[in-house]
Amino acid sequence: MTEIGEIEGIDTPFYLYDIDLLRRTLQKVCDNASRYGFFVHYALKANFEPRILQEVKSFRLGTDCVSGGEVRASVEAGFDPAGIVFAGVGKRDDEIEYALEKGIFAFNCESLEELEVIDGIAAKSGRRARVALRINPDVDPQTHKNISTGQADSKFGIAYTEIEEAIERAESLRNTDIVGLHFHIGSQITNLKVFEYLCKRVVSIMSWFEGRGVKITYVNVGGGLGINYESPRTEPIPDFDTYFRIFADNLPLRPDQTLHFELGRSIVAQCGALITKVLYNKKTASGKNYVLVDASMTELIRPALYGAHHHIENLTPHDGTEVYSIAGGVCESSDIFARDITLPVTERGDLLALHSAGAYGQSMASCYNMRPLPRSVYYTEVDGIE
Amino acid sequence: MTEIGEIEGIDTPFYLYDIDLLRRTLQKVCDNASRYGFFVHYALKANFEPRILQEVKSFRLGTDCVSGGEVRASVEAGFDPAGIVFAGVGKRDDEIEYALEKGIFAFNCESLEELEVIDGIAAKSGRRARVALRINPDVDPQTHKNISTGQADSKFGIAYTEIEEAIERAESLRNTDIVGLHFHIGSQITNLKVFEYLCKRVVSIMSWFEGRGVKITYVNVGGGLGINYESPRTEPIPDFDTYFRIFADNLPLRPDQTLHFELGRSIVAQCGALITKVLYNKKTASGKNYVLVDASMTELIRPALYGAHHHIENLTPHDGTEVYSIAGGVCESSDIFARDITLPVTERGDLLALHSAGAYGQSMASCYNMRPLPRSVYYTEVDGIE
Repeated sequence: MTEIGEIEGIDTPFYLYDIDLLRRTLQKVCDNASRYGFFVHYALKANFEPRILQEVKSFRLGTDCVSGGEVRASVEAGFDPAGIVFAGVGKRDDEIEYALEKGIFAFNCESLEELEVIDGIAAKSGRRARVALRINPDVDPQTHKNISTGQADSKFGIAYTEIEEAIERAESLRNTDIVGLHFHIGSQITNLKVFEYLCKRVVSIMSWFEGRGVKITYVNVGGGLGINYESPRTEPIPDFDTYFRIFADNLPLRPDQTLHFELGRSIVAQCGALITKVLYNKKTASGKNYVLVDASMTELIRPALYGAHHHIENLTPHDGTEVYSIAGGVCESSDIFARDITLPVTERGDLLALHSAGAYGQSMASCYNMRPLPRSVYYTEVDGIE
Repeated sequence: MTEIGEIEGIDTPFYLYDIDLLRRTLQKVCDNASRYGFFVHYALKANFEPRILQEVKSFRLGTDCVSGGEVRASVEAGFDPAGIVFAGVGKRDDEIEYALEKGIFAFNCESLEELEVIDGIAAKSGRRARVALRINPDVDPQTHKNISTGQADSKFGIAYTEIEEAIERAESLRNTDIVGLHFHIGSQITNLKVFEYLCKRVVSIMSWFEGRGVKITYVNVGGGLGINYESPRTEPIPDFDTYFRIFADNLPLRPDQTLHFELGRSIVAQCGALITKVLYNKKTASGKNYVLVDASMTELIRPALYGAHHHIENLTPHDGTEVYSIAGGVCESSDIFARDITLPVTERGDLLALHSAGAYGQSMASCYNMRPLPRSVYYTEVDGIE
């Protein structure tokens, strides 16, 4: 990681990306995935900065897109369309049309009605659509409710109660090939047992489909691997060894079947930090010490939206410690990055790092309060700051 | 309001603003405020679309800004700097400098340290700063915790425990005039009794200050007036009569004192609706009917962020009713606009209106999932759709 001397003087707030760590993480992903012949699609929603996409592309990953905008960004960044999957519950007609035109690998289809819409658009454009049915496996991912997506009353996926009907309808589709199944149960999953349970559900759902004559060659188990937000420096790279081994051990496949993963957070979260400057200290009537910083929920909304915690470090050296709440400058009470954490004595002008902010940080930024979008700065050992 | 025929064919999603309603609302605000000689500053954070700002400006309101970007937008839209107040807990040096240079009416100062920073910047630039101290009055606004800002452990304002020190420090400032007091206890307040209580606190805090030789000529009681989200058509204009009368009746002022308000939501919320098209219907295993629309939390984040509810109307005529949950297309479980509401039978292609979205809708939009920012469309009886 960079030293403070290298970033002092850069206008705050900004996202600082450690490109060396990103590369080591991608190498680890590729080493493990290739061991088992697995395909990894990078989930653009985590971070779609052009420089990050270039690094991901250089490791020959595919992409996982949830909008036409993301499909377009993948194509324009030079990703091979044959490695693009298009997921998401609300695909618009023009987005489907564009993805068909580009010849993407597959649509992860989220409802029966979407299946028919895709087929209709394929017919009109004289193309065939390759589709995986996203099945809602009803597995509890044991994570925050806002990022858990695979339970029985979720908006995502096709309910198991409608699978029978899906197969019937699929048989009547003239321009669509059902080639696979897609599952995604949630995000930031740290209890890896959950993935074992997912494998068991996938095996049973696959065999159910094949028993009904639907040949499955593409199996997509989504993503969801969590990262260590509490202690990013001790665990900068998630445990991809165990993660992939669980699927290798618990999800037996035939040689004509390929297993696909959609990883976002686990690849990019730890390489990014939001760097912010301390503007003011103040004390409330209840005795709370607030540190007001020049970043806010417009640069990083996860704490306000999910109650997420990012490890915060004061990069400026100081003696002594104090308990602080760290707040952003936006006029919302939810714009608090941390409550009652112990930091070195913190003063106006100090630089703070909010770690593990590479995923769902910059990609969720807004211009609320007419604040500018955050900039990004990249660091490598060889080239320094760019 | 518009008829569906006038907006069919416009690419969804978009914000539709009823400019006639906005004008009627502004007229009502002005009629009431001028009756008592009150000054109203429009809070840009609610909505800073250029067309909206032009309408507000034509009624000669001032502005309430919470960033340098908002001060700049006010100036560039042609608002008189003498009507601009600059609030916010995290003012950056360059923002303070810019505001001083433009000669704004006053800074609402949120901490002792900020007071000294403003004074220092004023000294350097050879200007005088007019400052109101934002006092945290510790009044419970009885609203959502994320939009309540005036309680004892809030990040906002100067604690009453530090007022004594504030006065002492203020005396030593060479380039700053403490001219007033600022209060803001929260947002979307519908129990107007809360404002009566605020008045009592303001009276006692003012007299405390004046008793210590601080002459108060500018009193700013913030905003906070709520709107009717449940039934926007029956109450399109908030009860400004009662609101302003409460202050006239409960906050006696001398002729040399002026009373200022910062109104955002109550002015613009009801004139805006987010118009979205239905993409898909689906049923979950638990029996829930989802309607997937082409808008999402990227256009309107209030439901995801605060659990806020916007009244939803199906503009396309249908017979019969059904219970639906309305979900957006973003890959987040929190991207739900409403749960289990009764609507006319709703089908693919229908246009839905999410009402009361003129405030904190477009201004909080993001490009998450690489979705484009929402567009805006304006309607007047005379000119139709623009």
